[in-house]
Amino acid sequence: MKTKYNFSAGPSVLPKPVLEKARDSLIDYEGSGMSVMEMSHRSAEFDGIFRRTESLFRKVLGIPDGYKVLLLQGGATMQFAMVPMNLLARGGKADYVLTGNFSNNAYKEALLFGKPISVAGSTKDENFRRIPAQGELTLDPDADYLHLCSNNTIFGTKWQYIPETGRVPIVADMSSCILSEPVDVSRYGIIYAGAQKNIAPAGLTLVIIREDLIGDPLPGTPTMLNYKVMAENDSMKNTPPCWPIYISMLVLEWIVETGGLEAMRERNRSKAGLLYDFLDASDFYQTNADAEDRSLMNVTFSTGDEEKDKAFVAEAKEAGMSNLKGHRSVGGMRASIYNAMPREGVSYLIDFMRDFAQRKG
Amino acid sequence: MKTKYNFSAGPSVLPKPVLEKARDSLIDYEGSGMSVMEMSHRSAEFDGIFRRTESLFRKVLGIPDGYKVLLLQGGATMQFAMVPMNLLARGGKADYVLTGNFSNNAYKEALLFGKPISVAGSTKDENFRRIPAQGELTLDPDADYLHLCSNNTIFGTKWQYIPETGRVPIVADMSSCILSEPVDVSRYGIIYAGAQKNIAPAGLTLVIIREDLIGDPLPGTPTMLNYKVMAENDSMKNTPPCWPIYISMLVLEWIVETGGLEAMRERNRSKAGLLYDFLDASDFYQTNADAEDRSLMNVTFSTGDEEKDKAFVAEAKEAGMSNLKGHRSVGGMRASIYNAMPREGVSYLIDFMRDFAQRKG
Repeated sequence: MKTKYNFSAGPSVLPKPVLEKARDSLIDYEGSGMSVMEMSHRSAEFDGIFRRTESLFRKVLGIPDGYKVLLLQGGATMQFAMVPMNLLARGGKADYVLTGNFSNNAYKEALLFGKPISVAGSTKDENFRRIPAQGELTLDPDADYLHLCSNNTIFGTKWQYIPETGRVPIVADMSSCILSEPVDVSRYGIIYAGAQKNIAPAGLTLVIIREDLIGDPLPGTPTMLNYKVMAENDSMKNTPPCWPIYISMLVLEWIVETGGLEAMRERNRSKAGLLYDFLDASDFYQTNADAEDRSLMNVTFSTGDEEKDKAFVAEAKEAGMSNLKGHRSVGGMRASIYNAMPREGVSYLIDFMRDFAQRKG
Repeated sequence: MKTKYNFSAGPSVLPKPVLEKARDSLIDYEGSGMSVMEMSHRSAEFDGIFRRTESLFRKVLGIPDGYKVLLLQGGATMQFAMVPMNLLARGGKADYVLTGNFSNNAYKEALLFGKPISVAGSTKDENFRRIPAQGELTLDPDADYLHLCSNNTIFGTKWQYIPETGRVPIVADMSSCILSEPVDVSRYGIIYAGAQKNIAPAGLTLVIIREDLIGDPLPGTPTMLNYKVMAENDSMKNTPPCWPIYISMLVLEWIVETGGLEAMRERNRSKAGLLYDFLDASDFYQTNADAEDRSLMNVTFSTGDEEKDKAFVAEAKEAGMSNLKGHRSVGGMRASIYNAMPREGVSYLIDFMRDFAQRKG
């Protein structure tokens, strides 16, 4: 069965106009006689793509002066190491809030570097159904940073507030919500995101870093993991991932053309709203995340019956909807409805869900 | 001026049939309804691509049992750190042969990890015109490994022999000669290569590692830089660079279809031979590398006059040949003629060179 709608948590669906442009330029980019994949990263042609991409990130996300934009490799998992390696060099310490698998992996990675790392809050006991409230956080005013994961892909939750941390900079993993709505970058020390959900195909990592946080890293930090080196070399200490950077430029252009992040948020709220309203009205399905902390990007739900969940995923696949199986730590189903998922995809899913509930309920 | 022939040292020209297939499958890969860029890396579709790619690497390079194939990120520069971080864990030491910028960068990176690192040989005093002979190497029989760079992109030299090192495994950076000719993998401990010359677009790194060299790395090694973790997770500890992996599969299929690496070597020798024969017969041009150590992939030459070199590069560009400027550490010109550079491209360059020499000689 040909996939009509791809609900993958990442890599995930890309906007159709972006794919069409990529196809049309694949062999000959704007009359250069070359594919973007063949361009020297030091050439004028690629330099133009790189500068336009950075400038579009700045424009679309409203990144203020005093922040660097880095385009790196290795995914968010590499940032789990780069953040402590670069920020703890003064014998510091850090706070981590645990709200799911990825924040937990970031915490475990930070422990590798032999510095005091504290859990500032966790909802593990509630299987990460929700985000801790400000009052539940134990914050160290002397921490070098507070780390959090803004949107939890697996559990379907999202931070709805930015915690107050005084002078402690917030480092946020925004892999699965970046570009889904406006963000006040000035409230963060570092924002990072793997590209493969809302930015571009896999192989690119966006890092937005406040310049005063760029300094000398811990001894033994590889050159490629040194923010200072990457900032001084405009992310080109060696060859960057040119093709994903090019696709991110096309995605950013598409965002601008469709009204920017305010319009994106409206569409995402409306799309997710369709699904959550249906789920809330249903006796057959239950949601995983607490209503007040729900993600706009990853909607987790189940029938409460493992056999029925399995049938749901299989039958949905037959009906042309792929990747609806939930992560093993939650079970049930997960519909990832990133920016590029059309509203019709969500309606199509709901029609299927209604029919399935009638047949199995 | 539209580029007819792209002599970039990397990223560089890709085979036309590969680009055509990539274009034709870009929006809908084999009736799946998805672009490869949109596929979950855990999906059956991408798993098929990944397994076929690994199996083609094994077939084309004749990789024996007892070696793992890893498909990573970060380029050769990341391997400059990963090699010592993973191989020096037993308080070991290592030997490095310096034959150009990249081997020198690998050496400097190894020094970051606080272990004794020795220079086993160097031709720096001769501006890296040649490769040291076996008798010129000072090898430590207790070293954990000997590191060398098989082909020196910038200087246009290539190791024509594999040094005898006893039980010390050889770690070779083959970024700019991988897949250009057959290689006896069993003679190496690790072979690594950035993809952006002969394998795929930038953003993918091939690592072939003998299994007994996979072990516990130095303390403080990030998870993503741990060969053991990457080997145990089939290179998918997190999302791999799916699109460059897919293109590498198409490139490997193209190599098989055109006769494998024996046939590739014949074509490469013949192509490079055209250019070297012309250069050797010319009074106007001089070559940089010593005749016996010349690279088949990167041909470095000059007129011996900076102004004429500058005119050469500019006029060649006007004639549709891009990226012929030599690296600043050598000056002059460099023609990178990787696998995908057609023989006609080399003939076209030689015609231009002959004409230029007549006009300026």
